[in-house]
Amino acid sequence: MVDDSLSATFAALADPTRRSILARLAEGEATVKELAAPHAMSLPSVSRHLSVLEKAGLVVKSRNAQWRHCRLEIGPLLELDKWMEPYRAFQARLDRLEEHLKTMMRDREAGGPAGADG
Amino acid sequence: MVDDSLSATFAALADPTRRSILARLAEGEATVKELAAPHAMSLPSVSRHLSVLEKAGLVVKSRNAQWRHCRLEIGPLLELDKWMEPYRAFQARLDRLEEHLKTMMRDREAGGPAGADG
Repeated sequence: MVDDSLSATFAALADPTRRSILARLAEGEATVKELAAPHAMSLPSVSRHLSVLEKAGLVVKSRNAQWRHCRLEIGPLLELDKWMEPYRAFQARLDRLEEHLKTMMRDREAGGPAGADG
Repeated sequence: MVDDSLSATFAALADPTRRSILARLAEGEATVKELAAPHAMSLPSVSRHLSVLEKAGLVVKSRNAQWRHCRLEIGPLLELDKWMEPYRAFQARLDRLEEHLKTMMRDREAGGPAGADG
């Protein structure tokens, strides 16, 4: 179900360590050990976080090496980016409204009769 | 802490009902009753979802009416949009790589010893 995968993506991202792991993987593949290094965290802890990211489809582990490499899977983030679209449109409308109000205020100051506002 | 507010935003969005409430509010303010209508959900259930959205700063309730109006607060979503930037860059790099590989394949096919069709 589409909604469930989006919920899983959001839930997986609701943790700073998991977001930090993703940020590292956006720079290139890494082993679990390499991912654990900057966090002063045990390998099992990092593995638990990776497992959440894997279940959400955000990380894929290669199976062909002694030290499994993890890589970022961008698909769920593209889905999230698409979900954001109406809210970017919402912000664009707010920006246009603000611009419109500023123009009105300038016009009133420039040409208004006696600027007696409350 | 910046990281916590981002985690709260992601956690609040990890639910289809809450995302649906936000989508409704992106079209304009609404009362709790109006928000509950399309969900065949009790007012207390909707209120609980709204409370999560309010704590994450995604929804603000007006306090000046008998029927409190809710409105979307876009700030946390803009923060989320900013967080997405490196991943859009990641996807752009993938797209460029794919384009590069396609060009290489075409060149190989066109300029190879057999050199048949283009």
